[in-house]
Formats: sequence, C-alpha cells, structure tokens
Amino acid sequence: MKQLLLIGIGPGDPRQVTYEAVEALRRATVFFVLDKGSDKDELVHLRRAILERYLPEGGYRLVQVEDPRRDGQAPDYVGAVQDWHAQRAALYARLIEDELGSDDIGAFLLWGEPALYDSTLRILDLVRERGLALALQVIPGISSIQVLAARHQIPLNRIGEPLTVLPGRRLGEQSRIDNVLVMLDGQCAFAALDDPQLVIYWGAYLGTPDELLVSGPLQAVKARILELRDEARRRKGWIMDTYLLRREE
Amino acid sequence: MKQLLLIGIGPGDPRQVTYEAVEALRRATVFFVLDKGSDKDELVHLRRAILERYLPEGGYRLVQVEDPRRDGQAPDYVGAVQDWHAQRAALYARLIEDELGSDDIGAFLLWGEPALYDSTLRILDLVRERGLALALQVIPGISSIQVLAARHQIPLNRIGEPLTVLPGRRLGEQSRIDNVLVMLDGQCAFAALDDPQLVIYWGAYLGTPDELLVSGPLQAVKARILELRDEARRRKGWIMDTYLLRREE
Ligand SMILES: C[S@@+](CC[C@H](N)C(=O)[O-])C[C@H]1O[C@@H](n2cnc3c(N)ncnc32)[C@H](O)[C@@H]1O
Ligand SMILES: C[S@@+](CC[C@H](N)C(=O)[O-])C[C@H]1O[C@@H](n2cnc3c(N)ncnc32)[C@H](O)[C@@H]1O
Repeated sequence: MKQLLLIGIGPGDPRQVTYEAVEALRRATVFFVLDKGSDKDELVHLRRAILERYLPEGGYRLVQVEDPRRDGQAPDYVGAVQDWHAQRAALYARLIEDELGSDDIGAFLLWGEPALYDSTLRILDLVRERGLALALQVIPGISSIQVLAARHQIPLNRIGEPLTVLPGRRLGEQSRIDNVLVMLDGQCAFAALDDPQLVIYWGAYLGTPDELLVSGPLQAVKARILELRDEARRRKGWIMDTYLLRREE
Repeated sequence: MKQLLLIGIGPGDPRQVTYEAVEALRRATVFFVLDKGSDKDELVHLRRAILERYLPEGGYRLVQVEDPRRDGQAPDYVGAVQDWHAQRAALYARLIEDELGSDDIGAFLLWGEPALYDSTLRILDLVRERGLALALQVIPGISSIQVLAARHQIPLNRIGEPLTVLPGRRLGEQSRIDNVLVMLDGQCAFAALDDPQLVIYWGAYLGTPDELLVSGPLQAVKARILELRDEARRRKGWIMDTYLLRREE
C-alpha cells in the first residue's frame, strides 16, 4: 500500500491553509510537484513558499516533474481530457512506484479545494485501475470561490436559493442565469451575455498580492474587466479568475 | 465605524481552521456567540473549544445571547426568514452599539464557510440600513460540503460539468438531478426520489467525533441513512447532515 495525502492549500495566500493541512504537510516525506510548463512557474513557486513557511526545517524530498500537456484544440473536450488523464495516470503510477518507499508518505499540494475542478482524485482512480494499491487521505482547502465571496463580502447563495458552479464553457448553454459561479473561463464567456439585469462579482489572482476585484452591473463593468484581465495576463503571462453572475430583480 | 470580523471556523474540527482565521481570532477583542437554544448547545461548545485552543491566554470578552427563533411553520418561507432577519438585525445592532467600543474589534465565529447558507452578512447589511457604520472583514472557512467530499474521496463535479448546491426544500422541484449537493434538509427530501440511477454520498456531524458516512446507490442505502439519521438525532438531540446526489450513466 502506497500512502498518499491530497492536501488542499488554498488559492494563493499561504495563510489560507488549515492547521489540518499543515499537520499533513509535516507527516509527508515526499512532495510531488507537477509543473505546467514555464508560464505558470509562479504557481510552483507558491507551492514552494508554503513548504518553506511551514516546514522551515526541511527533511522532505521534492519530486518535480513536467505534467503532460493537454490538447486544448481537440473538438471532443471530454475525450481530450480523458486522454490527458490517462497519460497523467501513467506518469503518476511511475512516480509513486519509483519514488515512494514503504515508509514514505507522499503528498500532492492541490490548488484551492481538492474536490473542485481538480483532476488528481480521478487520476489516482486510474492509477488504482492499473493495479497499484493506494491509501489516500484528502484534506480540504479554501477554494478560490470562497475567497471571491469573502473579498466582495457577499453570500454565494440568496436566501433559500440554489447556487450553480460551472466551467466557463458551460455558461452559454444555461437557459437562465440566476446565480452562477464560473471557473475555468479562459474565453470570457460573460462578455457574450447581454441581459441588463445581471450583476457580476469578479476576482483574479485571489489571495495573492496581484489580486484584482471588480463588481457591478455586468453591462456597465464588462469592458473594464476585459481590459484589466487582458493587461494583467499580458504582464504576468497567466491569469486565474473566477466570478459570480447574479440576476437582480 | 465599528470594526467587525466574520470568521469561518469550519464545520466541527478545530484543526479545520486556517492560519488566517486564527490571526483574526487573535485580533478580536469581543466575540459574539449567538445561541440557538439548548438543543444546539454543542455548537456553542465547539465555538468555545476553538477559542480555548487558539487563545489559551484569554484576553477577550464573550458576549453570548440567545438568537430569536424563526417561525418554522410559516407558509411563506422567504417572508418568514426575512422577518427573522429583521429581528436579528435589531438585536445585532444593539449588541454592536452597546458592546463594541471604538478600540474594540468584534468577531462572529461562523460555522463552516461564511458565504454558504449563513445569514450573518445579510443581517449586517440590515444593520447598516439602520444607520450603523460597519467596517467588515470576511475570513473564508472550510465548508461542510468540502469535508463531505474529502471523506468520501470524491470530486464535487464531474469532468467539465456543473455542480448545483441547494437547500433540501428546493430538491423536489429539480426537473433532473445530475449532480446536486443538498444542505439544510431536515425533511430528508432524498427519501422521496425513486430514480434507480442516483448515487448518494451522505455525511452527518462531519469533522466531529460523531461523524457518520454512508454512500452507495440511493435506493439501496436510503433506508439505512434514514435509520442512522433518526437514531443519531434522537440520541444527540440535533443533527446536521449534507449529501451529494449524482446520476450515474
Ligand atoms: C483547475 S481549477 C482549480 C480550482 C481550485 N481547486 C479551487 O478550489 O479554487 C482552476 C480555476 O480555479 C479558479 N482559480 C483558482 N485559483 C484562483 C485564484 N487565485 N484567483 C481566481 N481564480 C482562481 C479559476 O477559475 C481557474 O480557472
Ligand atoms: C445554516 S447551514 C450553514 C452551512 C455552513 N456555512 C457550511 O459552510 O457548512 C447549515 C447546514 O450545513 C450543513 N452542515 C453544517 N455543518 C455540518 C456538519 N458538521 N456535518 C454535516 N453537515 C453540516 C447541514 O446541511 C446544515 O443543515
């Protein structure tokens, strides 16, 4: 049985890590850091900053590997993601097999909350299907959507009403937007909406020193968000943003 | 300007509190503890346990008050909640005015995540409308739904798909349940569903020593959940549970 910890580390601020997560960091002996390639180096640095802050005495091994790239142009989105997951499962299986001894405890530092739009759990299921026995423990972490709400000082739901969380590519097909939280929206799907009753609460680089926040009636602030977003993405080379759309009566 | 901190403290395990939350606890001089009446005393104890753990040196004031009760039988749900909020706003305004000096920093310890089905932000809006100037800061916390996912070791969403979060009373009106997280369901709305393709991941008292977990095909495990739930609620006098319903293809 290989021991693995999946630790949610929050969306950027090392103080937004729980005591439970830090206890888990201290138990781990090997950290797997999957690198997305140079443009997102900063995310790797943030992970290292967390390790240095909470484990100043060292005493662990860091295994850094480049993650396979996903075909972003593939017409079949789910199929392309599944192929990519299979490649990553092969890589993870090899890493776990080669790098984790029987006394080791391996750990993945997962961005935000491990259960929200993160593929690690799914990939580890595939690793198990390949025949590797894993003993997992999952440690929840603060999600970017929680920091979004905290910064704008809003509840995510209205009294007694639902909240829908979805990836940007699913926004267009919603027949009615009442209260929708959008993640993973590289295409700025909000820009195509023309309902005058929508209000947006937007945030980028939440929890980091580069944090950006805009809120207001969508039609009034749309252009400003697009501009800020574009400028920041050009300057930093990457962006992570999320937003809540709410229909006001 | 009255200074107020709204601090998310997670759903029951004092280790599921962030470093940011503990920094905020240390800044606060007055804690408001709103008591729901004797049956939920344990929730007040858990809040006190967090204070004792992270502020062992004391040095703060605790203001404990009984929260007005909501009319649970009122036919107009939203109206009844709004009335209740108005009563609580009057109470909170008085507490803030009477108990917070100009050098004080007040704090509310909010269960789980402050932005999910918690009325404090809304009530403080009403307090502001009554003319009191407030400087707020919101600190995110781990929600019960994150602990649910961590314990069952599942992602809350499927690849590229939406997640809907809703209160139990809105479950019946869903035309199709694909991936729905249910909170605040005293009526066990899941028991009325007969779709054979639904799978449930259920958890009660998450993060506490009484934690209960059940998962499986809804029709196969429904009776067991109802039984466990009933027995636990009778024994402890209260229950808090939440679950994910997912339609398997
Ligand atoms: C692969 S998902 C991972 C989400 C993560 N598990 C969480 O709970 O925040 C990445 C998406 O999360 C959002 N996100 C993550 N970190 C963010 C941050 N610091 N600021 C704004 N959005 C962020 C963005 O929508 C981004 O496209
Ligand atoms: C008023 S809402 C507050 C939710 C809270 N803000 C959160 O993020 O978990 C109360 C509901 O949250 C869920 N809940 C809160 N704590 C829980 C726990 N420890 N275990 C299971 N469910 C919990 C239950 O569905 C309960 O009815």
